[in-house]
Amino acid sequence: MQLGLSFSDSDVSSFTPLVVLELADDTKAEAITWLLNRIRDKQQNGGAELLVNQLLFPAQDDQKSNPNVFVVGSTLQRLLNGAEDVGLFKEFQDGTMRGFTYANRESFKDFNGDGEGFLSDAECQYIIKHGLDTLRAKNEQHVPGYPKLKLYPGKSVVRRLQSKGVLIQYFPLHNKEDLKRLSFSWYKKFKLSFQPLDDIRHYFGEGLALYFGFLEYFTFALVPMALIVFLEVWKRCSATLAYGWGTLSRKKAFEEPRAGFHGALGFNPVTGREEPVYPSSKRQLRIYLVSVPFVLLCLYLSFYVMMVYFDMEFWAINTYHENPNIATSILLFVPSIIYAVVIEIMNLLYRCAAEFLTDWENHRLESSFQNHLVLKVLVFNFVNCFASLFYIAFVMQNMVLLRQSLATLLITSQILNQVMEAFLPYWLQRRRNKKVHKRMRRLMGDKELPLLGQVQLETEMNTYLGTFDDYLEQFLLFGYVSLFSCVYPLAAVLVVLNNITEVYSDAFKMCHVFKRPFSEPAANIGVWQLAFETMSIIAVVTNCALIGLSPQVKAYFPESDTQLILIVVAIEHVLLAFKFILAFVIPDVPKHIQVKLAKLDFDSLEALKKRKILEATET
Amino acid sequence: MQLGLSFSDSDVSSFTPLVVLELADDTKAEAITWLLNRIRDKQQNGGAELLVNQLLFPAQDDQKSNPNVFVVGSTLQRLLNGAEDVGLFKEFQDGTMRGFTYANRESFKDFNGDGEGFLSDAECQYIIKHGLDTLRAKNEQHVPGYPKLKLYPGKSVVRRLQSKGVLIQYFPLHNKEDLKRLSFSWYKKFKLSFQPLDDIRHYFGEGLALYFGFLEYFTFALVPMALIVFLEVWKRCSATLAYGWGTLSRKKAFEEPRAGFHGALGFNPVTGREEPVYPSSKRQLRIYLVSVPFVLLCLYLSFYVMMVYFDMEFWAINTYHENPNIATSILLFVPSIIYAVVIEIMNLLYRCAAEFLTDWENHRLESSFQNHLVLKVLVFNFVNCFASLFYIAFVMQNMVLLRQSLATLLITSQILNQVMEAFLPYWLQRRRNKKVHKRMRRLMGDKELPLLGQVQLETEMNTYLGTFDDYLEQFLLFGYVSLFSCVYPLAAVLVVLNNITEVYSDAFKMCHVFKRPFSEPAANIGVWQLAFETMSIIAVVTNCALIGLSPQVKAYFPESDTQLILIVVAIEHVLLAFKFILAFVIPDVPKHIQVKLAKLDFDSLEALKKRKILEATET
Repeated sequence: MQLGLSFSDSDVSSFTPLVVLELADDTKAEAITWLLNRIRDKQQNGGAELLVNQLLFPAQDDQKSNPNVFVVGSTLQRLLNGAEDVGLFKEFQDGTMRGFTYANRESFKDFNGDGEGFLSDAECQYIIKHGLDTLRAKNEQHVPGYPKLKLYPGKSVVRRLQSKGVLIQYFPLHNKEDLKRLSFSWYKKFKLSFQPLDDIRHYFGEGLALYFGFLEYFTFALVPMALIVFLEVWKRCSATLAYGWGTLSRKKAFEEPRAGFHGALGFNPVTGREEPVYPSSKRQLRIYLVSVPFVLLCLYLSFYVMMVYFDMEFWAINTYHENPNIATSILLFVPSIIYAVVIEIMNLLYRCAAEFLTDWENHRLESSFQNHLVLKVLVFNFVNCFASLFYIAFVMQNMVLLRQSLATLLITSQILNQVMEAFLPYWLQRRRNKKVHKRMRRLMGDKELPLLGQVQLETEMNTYLGTFDDYLEQFLLFGYVSLFSCVYPLAAVLVVLNNITEVYSDAFKMCHVFKRPFSEPAANIGVWQLAFETMSIIAVVTNCALIGLSPQVKAYFPESDTQLILIVVAIEHVLLAFKFILAFVIPDVPKHIQVKLAKLDFDSLEALKKRKILEATET
Repeated sequence: MQLGLSFSDSDVSSFTPLVVLELADDTKAEAITWLLNRIRDKQQNGGAELLVNQLLFPAQDDQKSNPNVFVVGSTLQRLLNGAEDVGLFKEFQDGTMRGFTYANRESFKDFNGDGEGFLSDAECQYIIKHGLDTLRAKNEQHVPGYPKLKLYPGKSVVRRLQSKGVLIQYFPLHNKEDLKRLSFSWYKKFKLSFQPLDDIRHYFGEGLALYFGFLEYFTFALVPMALIVFLEVWKRCSATLAYGWGTLSRKKAFEEPRAGFHGALGFNPVTGREEPVYPSSKRQLRIYLVSVPFVLLCLYLSFYVMMVYFDMEFWAINTYHENPNIATSILLFVPSIIYAVVIEIMNLLYRCAAEFLTDWENHRLESSFQNHLVLKVLVFNFVNCFASLFYIAFVMQNMVLLRQSLATLLITSQILNQVMEAFLPYWLQRRRNKKVHKRMRRLMGDKELPLLGQVQLETEMNTYLGTFDDYLEQFLLFGYVSLFSCVYPLAAVLVVLNNITEVYSDAFKMCHVFKRPFSEPAANIGVWQLAFETMSIIAVVTNCALIGLSPQVKAYFPESDTQLILIVVAIEHVLLAFKFILAFVIPDVPKHIQVKLAKLDFDSLEALKKRKILEATET
């Protein structure tokens, strides 16, 4: 089957392929023809005005490769117009960041000639993704060839195809040369310098760059353990980064319903367009009658497992005391290690359940879906990971056991994490690479097939599911460090060591293990800022309580516990008040960025005034 | 001296006078001519394009009245253009609020014919004020006739004249008929209905209407003493009001330096225009080396006075115990009353000092000046009013004395406030009215002179200095009610009674005691929201502590104070956590307003797209 233009490497030069589109291998020919026409059609006619070609793999003997793989590219003109449509901010001649407009293109800093090289690869791919995502049904009742794939005017074609499994995936291609340069500056040479955040952003987009920025910032902040202020200062760093990347003042486009959202067809009160509508009361019922009880049940289960762990712990201690030798002294650590592994498994299982439940709650917007998912996962993970430590610290008041449990939990979870998220995928990826290379070599002999090979390889790579898991891991590490920092300061050292390797393994996995992700414009780290701030408040409370419990402090107040408690509570309140005052006093956006933003507002107001006066004199 | 057009009541009909402008009576003729020409000049030429006439009072024998009083008005066309310039939001045909544009005027809901009656009086006056405020120097080096009144291009003429005392004042005129209607619906009939907030806003503008809305809301919230949530819900009410008034999404114009700001001439980094520049480091020095020590000194003084009060209190108690009779039992209340009066006097004196100091700190923006002033005043007033109560509650732990002091302080300060802010000005105003009426009657005989008389009268009225004092009073009342609510619930009843009379006296003073203030667009109650929230957090802490101190609760834990304290602290933390969760869970803007705002954004994006496509097809 061959539809429209197709090309092998000989005519690759017709355009630079930027995004790969993979349809199911049994997709009907009329649907493919229709989709390609819609993608190629002019924007005036409601098309995406992009270039798209089928990628033909040579016939294969042993294994069928999917024939319906397409590469998408674009003309430079379309990309520049698209940059204006998506509201990209670029650096202006005067050093401020401004919304790009094609009419003023010559006034932007790095715009030379026809604009070649003005947009980064990641930006071009983002523009193409936006073009594909906003390709909307016109008068089609359904996808040609698929009477069941209903469409209505304004429905995003790509989302409908994706939700029904016709479109398997679409992803941006790696750029081998850029990737090599990035890898080199990022992790190939060991150095004590900062990460190349601008390069990372250039290649992977703002969301991921902010994650690495936060990771670096977090690690540095751990060194002096200056945790109380550190989140306030991060907001400023983040604002500075986001300004330089043009995402700080960029307006969010109207948010479309997420792909999985379903409901009876109705009218959106904002757009006035037809789209599925799902009553919010039904959603609330699902949340409060199903999700909340489920979370509570899981928390109960987590407590139950904790109690089993304590039974094991006591058994191990008794065994050791009855018969103290090397074997039984090793046995002392076994319950903690088993518990740590069980915690990780429970977290994983719960994560799947939470995703399923949140999906079933049928949130209209991706952002609201994410918020509910994050909330569910955070509450459970917090309790699951830290309940035993709280129990040991404040009910058993056993500081030796606390230190030991903390160390075991922390080290075990770090090792598990590194294995699960870097080594395992890396090993799987290598195996897959070898297989693909072998297959290609057998098929083509010695002919080099860069594009075909690359697409084949990247199609089979794992998909990066976003920064959620990475932030979650940092959040839990932050908990281990901060909640009990005054009894086990060594935790900070362990986390710093972990994060140094984490930067390298994350960088490596982004470059070589996963498909390249689409750039995701982000102005801040979103709900995670709140999560980290909440944790830091809880940490103030726990640390004050721990200090109050410490024998050294208790020795100062031999007669009266009351006085000691009152003093500890007073100090705690002062610290908390201090935190809130700091949050209020330190502006979230640094002064020099504020000035630039004000300048932007002022200039656009002035421009408006001038236009009005011009219009007035014309008429 | 008579310049340009002048008119008495006979030709008043040439335009409706809306704003009064009073220059010093010795102002040089050339300066007046120049100013009037600038005000009348077309906007293209940098003028304000407003109508202005001198008001000629008949020659007087005994008392000279100022000859340099002018009334300012405007054509309807200028007002409608001005509404667009200042970014007024009005109700659209579809019920949403949209930025008014002259081109789309027909699509706004209440726009009929040529637009007569479309803008409220307060809006017209606001537009005229904006026109006068933004009248800028062109190439003049100084004000004609005043070589010392330096000007530079872009300097606001009115501000310069005002800061040097040439322009004594400018204020909007009352509209007698509207005022009569408003008075009637507002306070003339005693009723248990809500206040006419829309009418108040229509006549006085959003800032004041929000104050009265808050006052009403606060009073109602006191009845069930449901204080913990109430501030969150107010945010939603306030957002709903502000949306309906079109100030919620209205963009703030670029903020000019305040009138008193001075410094060497430099360049503003935002506008690139010449304006005075004052190094922020110098300001910081003034704040930290002078203002902060001064505030601390005042706080020390306040503590000292408190100690003197306690000495008096003990002396009175001793006298009573030595010789208990009616005279000495009355004596028991004397120290509290004296202390309450002294507190009010100290607050007043400190207020003046704080204003002087904040002015001396030379803040560039009015908003920053206000924030520093509010902070200074709040800290001192809080300590000054509540320190003795805290001392009695937590150091002396004398609940009987606490209740008695609280009642005396509260009642005394309420009485003093009502006298100072309503009866005294009212009495002064009546005296003044009578004098003016008498003078006018002597001059004119029986001829009615409505405009001249009105201007003469209003020129001499006091100027309303903004909502600061009114909010401050409510803030202190809130403190009296909430901080010790569990030992003296009656405080809430007293404050409710006070606020019911407060609504009436505030309404009366706005309508008849003060000059009409310019409307002040406001989307929320600003820094006061934060102040009230902080107070409510402190109140949770104090009430938990008071409950812990109460003998009934203590009786439950006869052996161990420790356990009691731990439980109280735990409950306090849970309450505080609950507050923060509520603040996070309750959206600040109600859902239906969110939808309308999203619709606005969406529509403007769509309109932009359409315009782009049109432009593209044209070229």
